[in-house]
Amino acid sequence: MLEYNSIIPLQDRSNDVLTVGELLIDLIADEYDDPFQGNRFSKFFGGSPSNIAINAKKLGINAQVCSAVGHDGFGRFLIDQLQKEGLPLQTIQYKDAATSLVVVTRSTATPIPIFYRGADFHLSYSAQLETSLKESKVLHFSCWPLSRNPARETVEQMIETARQHQLLIGFDPNYHPMLWPSGEDGVQYVKSIIPKVDVIKPSEDDAERLFGADSPHNQLDKFLDLGAKLVILTLGKDGALVSNGRETLTFPSLATEIIDTTGAGDSFWSGFYAAIVKGYPLNKALQLGFAVSAYKLKHAGAVIDFPVLEQIERQYFS
Amino acid sequence: MLEYNSIIPLQDRSNDVLTVGELLIDLIADEYDDPFQGNRFSKFFGGSPSNIAINAKKLGINAQVCSAVGHDGFGRFLIDQLQKEGLPLQTIQYKDAATSLVVVTRSTATPIPIFYRGADFHLSYSAQLETSLKESKVLHFSCWPLSRNPARETVEQMIETARQHQLLIGFDPNYHPMLWPSGEDGVQYVKSIIPKVDVIKPSEDDAERLFGADSPHNQLDKFLDLGAKLVILTLGKDGALVSNGRETLTFPSLATEIIDTTGAGDSFWSGFYAAIVKGYPLNKALQLGFAVSAYKLKHAGAVIDFPVLEQIERQYFS
Repeated sequence: MLEYNSIIPLQDRSNDVLTVGELLIDLIADEYDDPFQGNRFSKFFGGSPSNIAINAKKLGINAQVCSAVGHDGFGRFLIDQLQKEGLPLQTIQYKDAATSLVVVTRSTATPIPIFYRGADFHLSYSAQLETSLKESKVLHFSCWPLSRNPARETVEQMIETARQHQLLIGFDPNYHPMLWPSGEDGVQYVKSIIPKVDVIKPSEDDAERLFGADSPHNQLDKFLDLGAKLVILTLGKDGALVSNGRETLTFPSLATEIIDTTGAGDSFWSGFYAAIVKGYPLNKALQLGFAVSAYKLKHAGAVIDFPVLEQIERQYFS
Repeated sequence: MLEYNSIIPLQDRSNDVLTVGELLIDLIADEYDDPFQGNRFSKFFGGSPSNIAINAKKLGINAQVCSAVGHDGFGRFLIDQLQKEGLPLQTIQYKDAATSLVVVTRSTATPIPIFYRGADFHLSYSAQLETSLKESKVLHFSCWPLSRNPARETVEQMIETARQHQLLIGFDPNYHPMLWPSGEDGVQYVKSIIPKVDVIKPSEDDAERLFGADSPHNQLDKFLDLGAKLVILTLGKDGALVSNGRETLTFPSLATEIIDTTGAGDSFWSGFYAAIVKGYPLNKALQLGFAVSAYKLKHAGAVIDFPVLEQIERQYFS
């Protein structure tokens, strides 16, 4: 049981958060246009694990990314960016496949992606990776690396090692059928991972993809029934519902101005982990996660220039 | 033996040329820059088989493309373009994979591509494809579809059917190790295909990748020794050497002005096939192929607005 008024105990390790999964290029259409009739695209650094790690570092904790890229120009660009952000590179793997790429058209409605997955899902379990894991306090991953082998087996092995070594494990159950190999029951697989982790943060859409449409309180119960320990169900402008299995709390949105929603979820994770690592009690860590997310919403871009966590705390709670 | 002064006999069929292979998006960096540091890319219709078919149609013969795309915006864009060019679509297959994509940086030196192969190599042998093949006079393919299964088996089956039904078979032995699965002997495989076709058009680079560096005449002999019937060895600004196994002819380049070399090789094929189909003797068909290529070199773009073959003939040979 994770108590709201308590500090989550973390092991004494040299690294704070280790994030695992996709490191990729986002190629985004310049024009808001009919899908894919536009001719021009811009390249962006992408992948939720790296964004979380970069944010976390800016907020004032240590972070490390475990991802795979190809031996190509896109891979070099991504690694250059990580290096510029001051992240260590020892858990970056180079694979004999093209650096993964997602092409997205801008649209006033939902964006339509085409996934070109290459190196990212070739992530393998290595001695270096195990060493870094054992030196970390928190392990974080999302559905991307779970969707295909060998990355899936790598994450499964990491979860096992993380549990043996008492890391806090956070999981973003952002299941999407387009990521999964056709014919495979991704929903069932994602459900099988939930009991093995400590914290999950589904959106209402994530919940609906896993369980079908239902009320937020019912969705919370379904995650808890699967064995989730702490469920953070985000409700967009309506904030979030959080349950530790005994008590459900409502968190109103702290957003005052919305310029760009890209990366808001990753910002929550970064703020939440930073607060946990800095020793805030769970209740406050959740508030700080939502504050960091609200701060992000006021700025354009997936990764923005965050101040340290304490400054965001003063801005939102003093 | 293909005699230079003779017309190559073709079967009486409703379609002239059937080209098989990759249909894909070229995403080309806007800036001449350090590899992949540029941030903007432009999307182009791509794939040699379609370019040859589109050119051939403009030059005044019928053509059909046999390729596979994904159910996505890039696939729709490519199909729209084929439709605008008036090509029939019955041998286009839709596969459960992303439409293939090649990302290329511009550079004053050699361009550096990253290959994202999806739907293109999933091309399968179908009743529709066999019907179209049996209704065609010429079959053309390059190394792309040979590099991976199931497309490889599809082309192998097409070659067999084409030989049974006496189509003229043209093959572009543009072998590149980056296209081949690592660990597989692509060179040996490409050599095994050469005896099964009628016409091949290697560049000096192609020859060097297959046999190592050597003089043009020695390279010609190596292709002939493998069983090639007509070898057109292109030498860039120095024109081409052609051998039918008994006599070697020299063709000087007809280029007067070079604006853009993209698509020059595909233009040769289009002009050569158009001339063969229109009943010109082999010698003249070769000249017309080089004339169409020279015409292309004067215009920017991979696919340009060719006039009919007879007009190009008047321009270069009267």
